[in-house]
Amino acid sequence: MLTLYYAAGTCSLATHIALIDAGARYETVRISFARQDQSKPDYLAINPKARVPSLVTEQGVLTETPALLAFVAQRFPEAKLAPLDDPFAFARAQEFNSYLCSTAHVAHAHRMRGTRWVDPADTAAIAAMQRRVPSSVTAIFELIDTKMLKGPWVLGDTYSICDPYLFTLSQWLEGDGVDLARIPKVRDHRARMGERAAVKRAIAEETVPTSA
Amino acid sequence: MLTLYYAAGTCSLATHIALIDAGARYETVRISFARQDQSKPDYLAINPKARVPSLVTEQGVLTETPALLAFVAQRFPEAKLAPLDDPFAFARAQEFNSYLCSTAHVAHAHRMRGTRWVDPADTAAIAAMQRRVPSSVTAIFELIDTKMLKGPWVLGDTYSICDPYLFTLSQWLEGDGVDLARIPKVRDHRARMGERAAVKRAIAEETVPTSA
Repeated sequence: MLTLYYAAGTCSLATHIALIDAGARYETVRISFARQDQSKPDYLAINPKARVPSLVTEQGVLTETPALLAFVAQRFPEAKLAPLDDPFAFARAQEFNSYLCSTAHVAHAHRMRGTRWVDPADTAAIAAMQRRVPSSVTAIFELIDTKMLKGPWVLGDTYSICDPYLFTLSQWLEGDGVDLARIPKVRDHRARMGERAAVKRAIAEETVPTSA
Repeated sequence: MLTLYYAAGTCSLATHIALIDAGARYETVRISFARQDQSKPDYLAINPKARVPSLVTEQGVLTETPALLAFVAQRFPEAKLAPLDDPFAFARAQEFNSYLCSTAHVAHAHRMRGTRWVDPADTAAIAAMQRRVPSSVTAIFELIDTKMLKGPWVLGDTYSICDPYLFTLSQWLEGDGVDLARIPKVRDHRARMGERAAVKRAIAEETVPTSA
């Protein structure tokens, strides 16, 4: 049994969807950022980074979404969630997910998590970061739209671990001030994903928390 | 033949070292950030993100350091640069590299690349980011030092693709204002890496550019 620690509205949704896609047996534990659960001793013992997601496996705890998605794909190979037998094709999937993690998610995080990178008391600098988010996130998603997202799925004809991750980050676009008309392929991908049973189930499970 | 596009002093060093570790046949092409090579049409045709590294393979171009390192490990399995047969152990390596990419490198980048996240004209906000770098990077590397780096290598007794990546980012610590006495395991790891022939060769190859 795998246990996914998640918080609503965060990138943990990607791993949640992938677990369902894989047909994994799993349970979820909800972490409340409002209650600062992620910084309490019980959770820090699981994930000292005080972030989500964390996946508790029989072998230990795993964190970081690109690593978790690759783990799900490799642990459940029959689900064919990544091109596991071709190092180049697998690297292409990793490349996309790494870009989401280190560039797309990071740009977005400057809207709500600016205190990671400036003194929390410097409200002017935090506001400066927030003002930049619409243009920085738009530029990143335009690159995804024009250069990376092959369609209908991220890697082309075959659905993969890249798709739930893109879907998850694309939930935040309106909040980040991005005009979806500028990224029609991402917009259509999000709609296509929203029709999948696994996505509906993951969202429903996160809407009715199992704890908290 | 693989071709690595790199810039001196950047994270591309990690892939460069790994290619040598793997015994790969490769050539390097130097990109000058001072000349803005990364934004010229020739390079954008290779990597529209205008970043390094890029690795040109027989199958196409790959980018993003965690993806490149996993590719090198999978393409040259005889070099045993990652635990390829155990999804959990492989995910642990990916987890570490993902943290370096999305958290450690990003915190560092706020010293030199603040214009990614605020208006370039807002010099006060850029300075605010720079002031935060010593404490943010120190906190991240203290977590690496106490919770992640097992020693003597990142994953424990066995050298892996995590080691050249940590070594590469640890080159920037003094410039980021980090007191190495606070991270003795990282400091010792850096010294241990510096003695390896592959590391010396990669640094020498980047010091005497093959072009430019």
